[in-house]
Amino acid sequence: MEFAHINEHLDEQMMMIQANIDDMNPEQCSYVMDLLFEKGANDVCWIPIIMKKGRPGLQLQVLTDQSLLPALETIIFRETTTLGLRYIPATVHRLARDFVKVDTVWGEMTVKTGYHKGDLVQYAPEFKECEQVAKLHNIPLKQVYDEVRHQFVTLHK
Amino acid sequence: MEFAHINEHLDEQMMMIQANIDDMNPEQCSYVMDLLFEKGANDVCWIPIIMKKGRPGLQLQVLTDQSLLPALETIIFRETTTLGLRYIPATVHRLARDFVKVDTVWGEMTVKTGYHKGDLVQYAPEFKECEQVAKLHNIPLKQVYDEVRHQFVTLHK
Amino acid sequence: MEFAHINEHLDEQMMMIQANIDDMNPEQCSYVMDLLFEKGANDVCWIPIIMKKGRPGLQLQVLTDQSLLPALETIIFRETTTLGLRYIPATVHRLARDFVKVDTVWGEMTVKTGYHKGDLVQYAPEFKECEQVAKLHNIPLKQVYDEVRHQFVTLHK
Amino acid sequence: MEFAHINEHLDEQMMMIQANIDDMNPEQCSYVMDLLFEKGANDVCWIPIIMKKGRPGLQLQVLTDQSLLPALETIIFRETTTLGLRYIPATVHRLARDFVKVDTVWGEMTVKTGYHKGDLVQYAPEFKECEQVAKLHNIPLKQVYDEVRHQFVTLHK
Amino acid sequence: MEFAHINEHLDEQMMMIQANIDDMNPEQCSYVMDLLFEKGANDVCWIPIIMKKGRPGLQLQVLTDQSLLPALETIIFRETTTLGLRYIPATVHRLARDFVKVDTVWGEMTVKTGYHKGDLVQYAPEFKECEQVAKLHNIPLKQVYDEVRHQFVTLHK
Amino acid sequence: MEFAHINEHLDEQMMMIQANIDDMNPEQCSYVMDLLFEKGANDVCWIPIIMKKGRPGLQLQVLTDQSLLPALETIIFRETTTLGLRYIPATVHRLARDFVKVDTVWGEMTVKTGYHKGDLVQYAPEFKECEQVAKLHNIPLKQVYDEVRHQFVTLHK
Repeated sequence: MEFAHINEHLDEQMMMIQANIDDMNPEQCSYVMDLLFEKGANDVCWIPIIMKKGRPGLQLQVLTDQSLLPALETIIFRETTTLGLRYIPATVHRLARDFVKVDTVWGEMTVKTGYHKGDLVQYAPEFKECEQVAKLHNIPLKQVYDEVRHQFVTLHK
Repeated sequence: MEFAHINEHLDEQMMMIQANIDDMNPEQCSYVMDLLFEKGANDVCWIPIIMKKGRPGLQLQVLTDQSLLPALETIIFRETTTLGLRYIPATVHRLARDFVKVDTVWGEMTVKTGYHKGDLVQYAPEFKECEQVAKLHNIPLKQVYDEVRHQFVTLHK
Repeated sequence: MEFAHINEHLDEQMMMIQANIDDMNPEQCSYVMDLLFEKGANDVCWIPIIMKKGRPGLQLQVLTDQSLLPALETIIFRETTTLGLRYIPATVHRLARDFVKVDTVWGEMTVKTGYHKGDLVQYAPEFKECEQVAKLHNIPLKQVYDEVRHQFVTLHK
Repeated sequence: MEFAHINEHLDEQMMMIQANIDDMNPEQCSYVMDLLFEKGANDVCWIPIIMKKGRPGLQLQVLTDQSLLPALETIIFRETTTLGLRYIPATVHRLARDFVKVDTVWGEMTVKTGYHKGDLVQYAPEFKECEQVAKLHNIPLKQVYDEVRHQFVTLHK
Repeated sequence: MEFAHINEHLDEQMMMIQANIDDMNPEQCSYVMDLLFEKGANDVCWIPIIMKKGRPGLQLQVLTDQSLLPALETIIFRETTTLGLRYIPATVHRLARDFVKVDTVWGEMTVKTGYHKGDLVQYAPEFKECEQVAKLHNIPLKQVYDEVRHQFVTLHK
Repeated sequence: MEFAHINEHLDEQMMMIQANIDDMNPEQCSYVMDLLFEKGANDVCWIPIIMKKGRPGLQLQVLTDQSLLPALETIIFRETTTLGLRYIPATVHRLARDFVKVDTVWGEMTVKTGYHKGDLVQYAPEFKECEQVAKLHNIPLKQVYDEVRHQFVTLHK
């Protein structure tokens, strides 16, 4: 699910799949989302919407490489209650990305970085690592997150 | 469901009922809402929320006189999937309200008015009448709605 | 508005229309939605959004065959307050669909079915029939809905 | 986190805590929610809202026994960015609840039941068990969920 | 930012940019929106969504002429925390638009009008002018807004 | 609107006002919000909801000291379209708060701090100052915001 170092680039063979669903147990939404990510979807989200007759529904949005379209469609048809879905070709612009190791009082931690035209524009601590440290040391998660960013700025920027 | 003329007043024996629901077919939401209004609820709404494990859920909010609490609770337990609900005492401040008849090119139509400390603060065309006129004459609904307001302002304000 | 039996297929001449609206009386939203469905829109929804200057607005989304684009646009311009709309070509993937009759204690009821690559993936009781039975017999709607599904599984699966 | 058999009852010493937050990394929301549930909160949800200057924010709602108020407040202050929170006394009405075992083709599974004035009004398969079966047997989750309900209705109702 | 008189037309070289963001301080959303409008974006909105692991996120949508794509992308990468974005070609249908001056008790005020196939379909008071009058004269904003519409209908329709 | 140094405390004479509104031009929502803050409301937000007949509406929530209730109610009745509102007594728990000056490359900047039981739990750069610096120096806002936090942590924590 993670990426190695990549350069900034465009993916022009992407698809945005959408389905509007108003008759599905919403308890199952995160399960469907997980399956879609496992199969290789690039991005998945649910959006609260208002459907026919004023029913509160959810729009499923899945961003994927075109090659995965059939596999992801099958998941959507099997796991949701929709009778149809639509898709739209899309181009994805991805930043150059890398991982940087940062020394902290809790040991080495990882920061995901993003570069646009060679400039560092994003640096985000690996969320799972921060959660683990926060739980282990009983420290507020936001404090761990901030400290990793602080160290990254101090050491690498 | 409609009110006759009333004076501005406080209802101090009101209750706000809430239930967070993440495992109910949302197709059934408007049906539940209709039942609650029929039984005498003053206000009902559904709010999109995010529940345990990130599940998209809905919060049901029902405003009611305390005397109706048992009857409305029974509807909620029978018609939704919730295992519990909570309620909070509330005071309701209602404007003085009246209905005014207005002559329009489509005949006499009704405007609901609201007064705060004797000042006219609200005037809203009866929505159903506007819909009927819009359909009958094939006119945009917003045009009918605006025209009724326009006539009210011209004649009564 | 209902479909007869159809096979699983793609509709490649579809359009997704969108308009972001922040100055319209939301009371009129369901009326507009109904008009769009009557004219032949395949799907319509409203999405809560945040617009310019932090205003709470609504995004109208309409999925339609390209041939209906002019007629639906005229409805949107006449019935909403938007000064513009955008549209995007889309492909719609529809399941094979059929209706199955199911015997229940309340008489014969209908189940809408969906098939993906020949496999039954959806079976949904006709919502209006369930509502009618629930009202007539004073039974919770969810119970009627579940019972029709239960009978379908018992008899047809 | 689970309950044994209990009777229908009111909890009159409950509190609803709320905080509106517009300057917190939303990635951390589920972590905070988990901590609050672990400490004993009865219900937690996040609601998308629009705050000062049109900023998209989130309202945190926590339902809790009054005795836990100080502990949960400390979590909220440590883990979110809020400078204040409010709370409102609430009464919670809980259904009688029980667990029923149901035989299925995948082995014994659990259904959580709810009773209002002695009538069965809720029966919901244990979600985690359904997920495990769906994953293990590569069956759509909704099918497992439906089958457990189907067996419950066949055998116990 | 304002338009002079234009005829109803299609802009076929438009792009819809989208990014789903779950790790950004939402306090900064309106700032980003303002920058995008200043650079020439036609429409910008934020939509509450539910992202990976059930996190409450926001989808940024930007409608723009294709020629501005690189400049707007740079703003998005610099000012938000996203590592990627996607874009989809779109056609925009714009009404003929004009400004009409209307005499009111507060002086001359402006109404923005929209025409579809030659028919007046929209007339909206300039919002900023209404705000200024409301503040200056301590009158409810809705009353100013209604009065300008009322005068427009009386004089120009 | 700003506070000087205060100690952590409870305000027990607060009120939460709510109104559900489905027939108001949402363009006016931020204006109403600003008026309520100017009059002394402690917190104001708008929440997207689904109202009677499935209409997309907005719930206004205003937190205020009880002494301001009449003044804020008058604003709500004058500026929105509601015919009623409800209110609920609430207790507000406020952190001890202070302002700290921090030296940065852009000059002295302010950080708002919050203390719970004597522990520093919040430190947030003054948003307006960050915006001004970001605009003046053409630097991403998030970078300014992060740098002020970074300096605060380096110097004061």
